[in-house]
Amino acid sequence: MSEKREGEIELNVDPGTLAPEAGLVFIGRVRSPWIDRAECPKNMAAAREMARPASIEIEQPYRQGLGGLETVSHLVVLTWLDKAARNLIVQKPRHAAAPRGTFALRSPVRPNPVGVHIVRLTGLDVSTGVLDLEAIDVLDGTPIIDVKPYYASTDSIPDAITGKSAR
Amino acid sequence: MSEKREGEIELNVDPGTLAPEAGLVFIGRVRSPWIDRAECPKNMAAAREMARPASIEIEQPYRQGLGGLETVSHLVVLTWLDKAARNLIVQKPRHAAAPRGTFALRSPVRPNPVGVHIVRLTGLDVSTGVLDLEAIDVLDGTPIIDVKPYYASTDSIPDAITGKSAR
Repeated sequence: MSEKREGEIELNVDPGTLAPEAGLVFIGRVRSPWIDRAECPKNMAAAREMARPASIEIEQPYRQGLGGLETVSHLVVLTWLDKAARNLIVQKPRHAAAPRGTFALRSPVRPNPVGVHIVRLTGLDVSTGVLDLEAIDVLDGTPIIDVKPYYASTDSIPDAITGKSAR
Repeated sequence: MSEKREGEIELNVDPGTLAPEAGLVFIGRVRSPWIDRAECPKNMAAAREMARPASIEIEQPYRQGLGGLETVSHLVVLTWLDKAARNLIVQKPRHAAAPRGTFALRSPVRPNPVGVHIVRLTGLDVSTGVLDLEAIDVLDGTPIIDVKPYYASTDSIPDAITGKSAR
């Protein structure tokens, strides 16, 4: 799925071909303006700048689980990045000077391609299962595996550091 | 696995019994002081207060993926909360006044029991696959499914709100 660039290292075994140690169910899908990988923002900062609203549709059996999110301003959304390869353990992002380990990157390509997105919730309809979002950085149709309330007390570290080379 | 409390609602089908739509591999394990659920801190704020260090051991094939984390102060760690039930869609936490939807809670009990933990990285040995952590709020032996760098620019929302009733 991905072209290999200089310095990139593949795992000997593609995790996508291993017997799963745990199984996920898809509880809903993202509805976003991004149909094409080329135009899809690469991170939440870029998505917020582009200011194109998006939404999440939760499937019927799981909608009761949304009750209580009315008072929450931001969500932690977990997606399954189903278009991403799983077999690169060292990667060279297009704009990076040097290759780096997959776990030092936010690339969708990773052994378990789970996306973590901190998003602002702008509307909620528990009966239809629709959560309106300020913006999101994934393709239309991306499966949702979890939604959690974002707590500034535990999740916000404004002075966290990622040396320049870490980007 | 969990005792049902008043007002709690079960899904008709336990997601743990459904055919998985995606499969996870375990890339490592948490080493924490918490052997017993009763003593395990319930969230990262409590874990930080208790100030008991912990670590993550990444399995050999995935260790190359840690290169580059040297410059990162905080991580987003994703765990598979393998002791948690998956079938409750409305829950009543012990100290909450009323039941609320699972997606409005950070309870480990959820359709896909993936934990999101923002932790401070205090040491890193790529060759042995050991990441030293300031603290973590999960049991010893909990499987790791992903590690990502925490970016204040996209992940930190200091003024996020969760009305009092959302706790």
